[in-house]
Amino acid sequence: MDITPFLEPEKGRPLYQQLYSFFKREILAGRLKAGTKLPSKRALSKHVNVSQTTVEHAYEQLTAEGYLISRPRKGWYAAEVEGRFHGTAPPPPPETAANDEASPSRHIIDFHHGHADLRNFPISAWKKTFANAVDDFSLFQSGPAAGDIALRSMISSYLRESRGVVSTPEQVIIGAGTTILLQLLCRLFGEGAAVGFENPGFHRSKTFLKTGGLRVIPISVDNRGMSVEELRQHDLKGAYVTPSHQFPLGMIMPVGRRLELLDWAALNGAYIIEDDYDGEFRYAGQPIPSLQVLDQNSRVIYMGTFSKSLIPSLRVSYMVLPAPLLKDGLRLASLYKQTVSRHVQHAVAQFMKSGDWQRHLNRMRTLYRKKRKALLETVQRELGESVLIKGENAGLHIILEANGAVSEETLISKAFEEGVKVYPVSASYEEPPKSASVLLGFGGLSEEDIETGIKKLKKAWR
Amino acid sequence: MDITPFLEPEKGRPLYQQLYSFFKREILAGRLKAGTKLPSKRALSKHVNVSQTTVEHAYEQLTAEGYLISRPRKGWYAAEVEGRFHGTAPPPPPETAANDEASPSRHIIDFHHGHADLRNFPISAWKKTFANAVDDFSLFQSGPAAGDIALRSMISSYLRESRGVVSTPEQVIIGAGTTILLQLLCRLFGEGAAVGFENPGFHRSKTFLKTGGLRVIPISVDNRGMSVEELRQHDLKGAYVTPSHQFPLGMIMPVGRRLELLDWAALNGAYIIEDDYDGEFRYAGQPIPSLQVLDQNSRVIYMGTFSKSLIPSLRVSYMVLPAPLLKDGLRLASLYKQTVSRHVQHAVAQFMKSGDWQRHLNRMRTLYRKKRKALLETVQRELGESVLIKGENAGLHIILEANGAVSEETLISKAFEEGVKVYPVSASYEEPPKSASVLLGFGGLSEEDIETGIKKLKKAWR
Repeated sequence: MDITPFLEPEKGRPLYQQLYSFFKREILAGRLKAGTKLPSKRALSKHVNVSQTTVEHAYEQLTAEGYLISRPRKGWYAAEVEGRFHGTAPPPPPETAANDEASPSRHIIDFHHGHADLRNFPISAWKKTFANAVDDFSLFQSGPAAGDIALRSMISSYLRESRGVVSTPEQVIIGAGTTILLQLLCRLFGEGAAVGFENPGFHRSKTFLKTGGLRVIPISVDNRGMSVEELRQHDLKGAYVTPSHQFPLGMIMPVGRRLELLDWAALNGAYIIEDDYDGEFRYAGQPIPSLQVLDQNSRVIYMGTFSKSLIPSLRVSYMVLPAPLLKDGLRLASLYKQTVSRHVQHAVAQFMKSGDWQRHLNRMRTLYRKKRKALLETVQRELGESVLIKGENAGLHIILEANGAVSEETLISKAFEEGVKVYPVSASYEEPPKSASVLLGFGGLSEEDIETGIKKLKKAWR
Repeated sequence: MDITPFLEPEKGRPLYQQLYSFFKREILAGRLKAGTKLPSKRALSKHVNVSQTTVEHAYEQLTAEGYLISRPRKGWYAAEVEGRFHGTAPPPPPETAANDEASPSRHIIDFHHGHADLRNFPISAWKKTFANAVDDFSLFQSGPAAGDIALRSMISSYLRESRGVVSTPEQVIIGAGTTILLQLLCRLFGEGAAVGFENPGFHRSKTFLKTGGLRVIPISVDNRGMSVEELRQHDLKGAYVTPSHQFPLGMIMPVGRRLELLDWAALNGAYIIEDDYDGEFRYAGQPIPSLQVLDQNSRVIYMGTFSKSLIPSLRVSYMVLPAPLLKDGLRLASLYKQTVSRHVQHAVAQFMKSGDWQRHLNRMRTLYRKKRKALLETVQRELGESVLIKGENAGLHIILEANGAVSEETLISKAFEEGVKVYPVSASYEEPPKSASVLLGFGGLSEEDIETGIKKLKKAWR
């Protein structure tokens, strides 16, 4: 075999990811030519001394992303990236992502936390709303940089109504995804500004803030959320928290800690970035209002998104800037220009105005509550004492912490051998955590798949 | 037969594509007049010694994109680009934002350079395409961070065909506006990296790059574009240029300067950001290929947008990363996630695939050519020797330089008194220019308004 990936077992990155990166690089660089057959799972696993599951995991990922093509009973081939576009073959028949993502070999139950249930999406209402938006010719020319006032007004009202967030429409800034808004905040805080970040926390946002030029200081999270005591030991311009449903651990920040955090911010002239990424979904007890509602000193930047509450691929997020940041924020926004198509903005505003969105959200809440119930019951029944459930009172994912001496990687790879994808928690930590935990998102799975998935986990982990 | 395409069988590009390009060029340049009958498949195949299928393939493609009309049993004709779109049965003339923005008390004629003519927008085709996109459920979940491969493939093919840009679909990165892509470039160049910028140049992009953490060094522009001599006096990681239609002065960079610029980049390991913001519109002479096509050393980052060529408020831009930047660029893109809704991406890709976009573009080109003609004729007739016209060979704006002792501010305020908005050029300069010039965009105005506007300018400025 003339393909020899260089793997480093101690390097911290899972082996399947290292394999994945290796092949991706080879294909992008053109060293692995289109149409080349890849070594079989078995051959490669022997050759580089990893499990066949690890190889399969890497191949599945590459197939999902379009780098490999899987031919049933034949094997995996490097995708025809070059040939399609350099003239040999006829014009490109563009593959749709759906086909790319289809797993040809077997049915994988994927507990991805970013997936949403769209089977009940009110497609005809949405289509109609969208078609009406396209009919409005005034929407074809550029609009206000911070977003159309119609959408900002709807969001402002909704946030006050359901999350307690107090704002004027002018304070609401629309952006094509949370990263766009974080990017703006990076420039608002200024190059090199230090910001406290939950540890464990959102790996992606952390990397993003670093790339955006901030110094990111990890701050421990206890069972009430970010440690304010630790915050006080640093000279910080801000702190990034997920108080409604801590990511990844899932606990809800109690009011005492909230007030402590707000006091810290007021005293230090710092700002709190409140990422309310799935605050729409709460299952037990009263809905908890946002952190922003308790804020008496204009210290909170509230962030939300329609990714979970409407359409993941829609790319509409928003933030509410406190008064002291508003002028500079709007100036920066006007430099960036608006990143969401005005037709999309208009459609979302209309969907909110007509009540279609609230109805959808209520349906989803019921649906997710049932899924969550099925998940928790099955976990208790099938896995019992072998795991501890965490963060189950809100959001679209839970954490399973394993009792007993087992590694996170083993949990993940054994699960994958049974055809179940669960996700690492350690990636969210600065240093590897003591216990082994995995993250299970349930938004995108049916109740049946959830049950089957957990039964398979029982088999995998026993 | 007086049509003799020059084909190069060894050149790697399929013969049908070479034929296709030849006829497209002839039609666009007006050398093949509307209504001219094309040679039959059989005759042409004999004449240039290719198969009839090759000819048919080319003709079909040209027909799909609206360059040819196929009459059953009669043959193919060069399309009557003018007649088809004026007067038959155009859709209702919607008001453009230009009108919305006008003061309610009087009719303002606004020569804004960011406005596009949307009265002829193929609204029903676009609506249908969009509705089909919403029907595709696979598009609701998140897609690839750099953009869906279907759209990136269409853009890659289009750029090769019409701008000469050589790329694989993987090199194309989609973003919700040019600023998003510039932001990514800022992080790719690294905090504090120095970049040469045209003086005069795009004020907004300059400020944006500065805010993004780059050191922006103004480099003089002479009548051939950015001065490479001046570039050599600095230690730069890159240079930002608008070679197809310099903003704001409007000249086209000749090939000699292009090669000089590329040599400089190769020698210094620098990158050239080629902003082809309105490269679709050129009125005199051959379409000029992009700077990227001349680049032998992977030194050019090519940027384009659908703002002028489709819908200003759509927010879809793209850039083509050269191979050395690809790995880091894709890594950064995956951090940002995709900023354009997948439904929008899909709709644009389908619009390109169906030929609807090319047809629209052809119509717009004709329309803009007529507006430009009306503008230039009226300016010459009404303003005569009092102004010098600059930058009129491409794009959607021209520059009027005043002869005589008058300030830019006076030109603008006097015009406004007569109800005409023209725009300053000095904002694009580091230091106030010696002569007084104003910028007139004509994309969003009717020919009547253009004439009236110029007559009013005569009155205002005399």
